[in-house]
Amino acid sequence: MPIKFAAIGLNHSHIYAQVDCLLREGAELVAFHAPEDDLAALFVEKFPGARRVADRRVILEDPAIALVLTAAILDERAGIAIEAMRHGKDVMSDKPGMTTLEQLGEVKRVQAETGRIYSVCYSEHFQTRSTVKAGELVAAGAIGQVVNTVGIGPHAIRKNSRPDWFYDRSRYGGILCDTGSHQCEQFLFFAGTDTDAEVISATVSNRSVPDRPGLQDVGDMHLRTPTVTGYVRVDWLTPDGLPTWGDGRLTILGTEGYIELRKYIDIAGRPGKDHLFLVDRKGVQHVDCSDVELPYGRQLIADVLNRTETAMPQARAFKAMELALTAQKMAEVGTVWQQ
Amino acid sequence: MPIKFAAIGLNHSHIYAQVDCLLREGAELVAFHAPEDDLAALFVEKFPGARRVADRRVILEDPAIALVLTAAILDERAGIAIEAMRHGKDVMSDKPGMTTLEQLGEVKRVQAETGRIYSVCYSEHFQTRSTVKAGELVAAGAIGQVVNTVGIGPHAIRKNSRPDWFYDRSRYGGILCDTGSHQCEQFLFFAGTDTDAEVISATVSNRSVPDRPGLQDVGDMHLRTPTVTGYVRVDWLTPDGLPTWGDGRLTILGTEGYIELRKYIDIAGRPGKDHLFLVDRKGVQHVDCSDVELPYGRQLIADVLNRTETAMPQARAFKAMELALTAQKMAEVGTVWQQ
Repeated sequence: MPIKFAAIGLNHSHIYAQVDCLLREGAELVAFHAPEDDLAALFVEKFPGARRVADRRVILEDPAIALVLTAAILDERAGIAIEAMRHGKDVMSDKPGMTTLEQLGEVKRVQAETGRIYSVCYSEHFQTRSTVKAGELVAAGAIGQVVNTVGIGPHAIRKNSRPDWFYDRSRYGGILCDTGSHQCEQFLFFAGTDTDAEVISATVSNRSVPDRPGLQDVGDMHLRTPTVTGYVRVDWLTPDGLPTWGDGRLTILGTEGYIELRKYIDIAGRPGKDHLFLVDRKGVQHVDCSDVELPYGRQLIADVLNRTETAMPQARAFKAMELALTAQKMAEVGTVWQQ
Repeated sequence: MPIKFAAIGLNHSHIYAQVDCLLREGAELVAFHAPEDDLAALFVEKFPGARRVADRRVILEDPAIALVLTAAILDERAGIAIEAMRHGKDVMSDKPGMTTLEQLGEVKRVQAETGRIYSVCYSEHFQTRSTVKAGELVAAGAIGQVVNTVGIGPHAIRKNSRPDWFYDRSRYGGILCDTGSHQCEQFLFFAGTDTDAEVISATVSNRSVPDRPGLQDVGDMHLRTPTVTGYVRVDWLTPDGLPTWGDGRLTILGTEGYIELRKYIDIAGRPGKDHLFLVDRKGVQHVDCSDVELPYGRQLIADVLNRTETAMPQARAFKAMELALTAQKMAEVGTVWQQ
């Protein structure tokens, strides 16, 4: 029997990859809820089997639905996840899972009380073949012990196509919370810990969008565990001349080698995406990761059925958001970022 | 009349490039002092016109010598520079210029008193064509206003060829002081300030060389000016399989584009070194910088003759060391790093 799932909140297009990774593995999308007619129309076009429901309680109260997905506006996700867990559903949220440390505390409390799975689909890891491959190589000891990671996450602002909430600090949670949370999860993953990490320093700024003072277009943070350090820079400054939305990079330095990911483009280099470069004791090699399996959807379905944590430890889903939200708070000390 | 110069202290092979950049421009190397016979023999082989003197006072007291170069053991450089300035000579030191904030204070004081030029040859900038080219592009507005820089400076440890002082914290000053100072200078240069910058956080560690507890094999720091942020990671972890000593990178993010430098190698990519990648509103391009002029030597000679600051503002030479030494101190709080 395939598991049945539904979506509540389609505001970020990540919802399509969230749905796809489950459909691919045989799960069944039965329903969705979205207040916005335009977003709903696009979704139905892509997934004609999904029934639109006007009231999200229809989804929450359907005992056949095991899993609820959300890519709602960022400050609404925690509430949807909490409601879903209280109705006995597991949850897969788009990142960030929430926009405040208070919401994080509440989600953690309800997750512990209900024993539900609360997963955040950190797509720059789980939907990115080169990141998955790097995880396999590091686990196999290809670069020795991990020492440092540098993650660069530029995004394209595409100014004319963004809804108002995109520019509202209270709704998107700040740049380190939003796109930074991807990077925090990868830092934990490659550092080999789900809990033992801290933010040392962090900054945010608006350097290029003075007419949208609520937008943070750049932010960075310095992270560490007892043995591994990391740096993250995220921004909305992808230049128009780049043929894709962002030149995302991740460099993982180990005691015996290093890996560089050029996730979405190899500028003025090889075509395609998911380029992994491995430098070790023996030499330098380029690894094309376009055939690497993305196991997240399959693993999450197994977790729902077997009550396991194979897709991602529950603790890491939370800790990544804790780091991102803590960095966000540190970066904003003394400033006001409401629109 | 060409200017005459001399060298005191040959312990780092950087001295060869320091000498070359002046010889190329017509200056005359007349003498050198080094206590080590093996280092002196190699130097004479390369520069047969230079007379070895047994006492460095012969150089200091020769009124014909305008400029003294040093690449002595790192903790001895400040003393040599101070003595040279007190004897009326200008100075070009290998980086780092000194190993403690106290030495920095003394060098600054003597420089101010004597009015001599105290230059540090930060070779990852001044001897690196792609860095010089990036400076030209940024100054011409190619990427708008600079927002962030990320500098990665890996080096090869070549364990069997290093003298004992290389592993002695008190002699090399710590990794952020040593190889980190290159990066601090570039941060200031690309951020467009010679004075207004601070270290927000910093770490050092020894992850791979337990038998040499005095060596810091990795360190990093988070920097900022009022508008620009920066991250620096330096290490001695270049894997044996890399065909050169280090995969040095610098990424400069601006409001309208970004530049990536692959200074010494383009891993699994184009041959040669000094690769610059420019992404702007119009597109993506690779720029081969192998023909770019390195003006540092020519400019420093002009500065000596004309009492100007064209090679590098005096304030930036000092501020870069202040950042590096401050980061070093912050990173070591609570630890002991004597060999």
